[in-house]
Amino acid sequence: MFSLLIHERRKQKKSIMAAISEQVRQKKAFGWAARDTSGVLSPFSFHRRATGEKDVTFKVLYCGICHSDLHMVKNDWGFSTYPLVPGNEIVGVVTEVGSKVEKFQVGDKVGVGCLVGSCHSCENCADNLENYCPKFILTYGAKYYHGTTTYGGYSDIMVTDEHFVVHIPDGLPLDAGAPLLCAGITVYSPLRYYGLDKPGMHVGVVGLGGLGHFAVKFAKAMGVKVTVISTSPDKKIEAIDRLGADSFLVSSDQNEMQAAMETMDGIIDTVSATHSLLPLMELLKSSGKLVLVGAPEKPPQLPVLPLLFGRKMIGGSSSGWIKETQEMLNFAAEHNITADIETVSVDYVNTAMERLLKADVRYRFVIDIGNTLKSTS
Amino acid sequence: MFSLLIHERRKQKKSIMAAISEQVRQKKAFGWAARDTSGVLSPFSFHRRATGEKDVTFKVLYCGICHSDLHMVKNDWGFSTYPLVPGNEIVGVVTEVGSKVEKFQVGDKVGVGCLVGSCHSCENCADNLENYCPKFILTYGAKYYHGTTTYGGYSDIMVTDEHFVVHIPDGLPLDAGAPLLCAGITVYSPLRYYGLDKPGMHVGVVGLGGLGHFAVKFAKAMGVKVTVISTSPDKKIEAIDRLGADSFLVSSDQNEMQAAMETMDGIIDTVSATHSLLPLMELLKSSGKLVLVGAPEKPPQLPVLPLLFGRKMIGGSSSGWIKETQEMLNFAAEHNITADIETVSVDYVNTAMERLLKADVRYRFVIDIGNTLKSTS
Repeated sequence: MFSLLIHERRKQKKSIMAAISEQVRQKKAFGWAARDTSGVLSPFSFHRRATGEKDVTFKVLYCGICHSDLHMVKNDWGFSTYPLVPGNEIVGVVTEVGSKVEKFQVGDKVGVGCLVGSCHSCENCADNLENYCPKFILTYGAKYYHGTTTYGGYSDIMVTDEHFVVHIPDGLPLDAGAPLLCAGITVYSPLRYYGLDKPGMHVGVVGLGGLGHFAVKFAKAMGVKVTVISTSPDKKIEAIDRLGADSFLVSSDQNEMQAAMETMDGIIDTVSATHSLLPLMELLKSSGKLVLVGAPEKPPQLPVLPLLFGRKMIGGSSSGWIKETQEMLNFAAEHNITADIETVSVDYVNTAMERLLKADVRYRFVIDIGNTLKSTS
Repeated sequence: MFSLLIHERRKQKKSIMAAISEQVRQKKAFGWAARDTSGVLSPFSFHRRATGEKDVTFKVLYCGICHSDLHMVKNDWGFSTYPLVPGNEIVGVVTEVGSKVEKFQVGDKVGVGCLVGSCHSCENCADNLENYCPKFILTYGAKYYHGTTTYGGYSDIMVTDEHFVVHIPDGLPLDAGAPLLCAGITVYSPLRYYGLDKPGMHVGVVGLGGLGHFAVKFAKAMGVKVTVISTSPDKKIEAIDRLGADSFLVSSDQNEMQAAMETMDGIIDTVSATHSLLPLMELLKSSGKLVLVGAPEKPPQLPVLPLLFGRKMIGGSSSGWIKETQEMLNFAAEHNITADIETVSVDYVNTAMERLLKADVRYRFVIDIGNTLKSTS
């Protein structure tokens, strides 16, 4: 028993020494965090891990404000932990790479989206579909390996496994390109997966926010005819003249909706507010596809008859995988697709969140981290 | 005005003469019809059109009793008209062909399923998808061209446009083959369309009735692993030993359902009774497909989260198109796929309907029209 006790004490000592050594190796980081369900963000000093052998460390320059950030800071989905540093549309410049990093070097322009880890051993990981890995690790508010917490891009530096880092192609502006990493890939992925990317097709886009405006731009660049479907008639000019949509439907206008029945090959529905799916199903041709990328607050009714008698289907999609995110960025650079943004300083972030809640932004806030985030410590 | 009156009278006379002449050319037919919403069937004499130049006339030998027949005789769907002669799983032997018929000759064994007409000018018809033509004409209880009513296969003869007639391949028994024409194609078509036909895949079949037992047989013949999901534990031995399913899940057994989570590539759901779709969605792997082929009485809730976070989808399917029906029959003949049937005489049909309502048949009633339907006129 005594020898066992000594052994245990030695183990404890080693463990404490390792922790101290790890602490020394950690990097000081600084960002803005929500501290409770009020969702109010304030300056926050913390540590990130030292650059591991497969890690890329980069200085954050810009970070988009995603609708998820709004939900997460207020714990709307019930799994937030505090302090919470949001941000999953992160771009910056590499400052350090681990000894076994292969794809990146210091000075590269890089980005990180929603994910910073996955199991690498499941069927989805084997297919490179990290975003559908049951053990994926979100960029912020999640438990990383060894129980540490992940912190997002409202911060000065990121340390990320290179597998989850992408190159920002030359020609893509870092500020207006940042929102591609979550909003962009969220609509690009289903356009590709559900085959709604063929020239000459007709695709509807429901909702004209951060996701919707990207859906219009990507679909148009793919050669698709795009109709925006919205509750707000005042978005018509904007949708057509500024974003390049071919037509516009006011969803409450029965005549317009009736005239457009059975004309669309697919619809990307970006709206999270509860709404009936039947009028959308009626816009689809036979074998048309309705794809949800926003989670309605209450489960809607499933319109069964259009599924049966029109062989229509309802699918969904969540973000995209890493290789596809790189492909999407390359496509965006080639076709000059960026977000329409309003750049803000980090100390405007709480106001930006309030405005985002009221949909008072066209179409994405991007925080100028590089120029406005100053450590107060 | 007077000359106009004369003209009108002449037109009327011509029209009456044409109607009489058409009457003379019509064929006497005899079958069993429902007369009102009681759904009770009784002998019924009527006329079919004379064999047109593109028509095939055939003597009916067998007709399956489909679940739709049960709904239609009672006007459950609200669009039945009486007298109503049901029957859309019809096989027989050709007795006469029109001058321009190309695919059939007297003596051929033929079949007719759910459809006897479509517009031939819409996008779906151009793609040979007659079953999704918005103007398709059902085999019974529908308005045919010129306003005549269509009558189904509970009758001695059929006169059908050759486009909607299929060959019954040699080796396929006419009695047990008849249900392929509706039940068979209804599950074969979605297995193919939704890509659930790849050897090594794992497909669930919900409900083990007329449709379900065909789904098991077709999927097995395609090299797919099949799990039957049922509320009735007493169907387990039957599903595995008789039909060849690989495994069986009792849907109310939480442990069994839990153990099978995320294991299936797709599910064919044949159950019309209202049921929750969430437990089925949970059985699907990422990107799995739930396909409804029965219309639930009440619209179910759409489980959105599995769509988003598993990229799963819900689709539907209704019958199949004509070329595909022929392909399905050829496949069935090649793989010895027929219905498990109980053959009945036509005067047993009302009892058979009552038993079908109680799911008291394994798995399909087929009426021996050729030997038991005798005209009383």
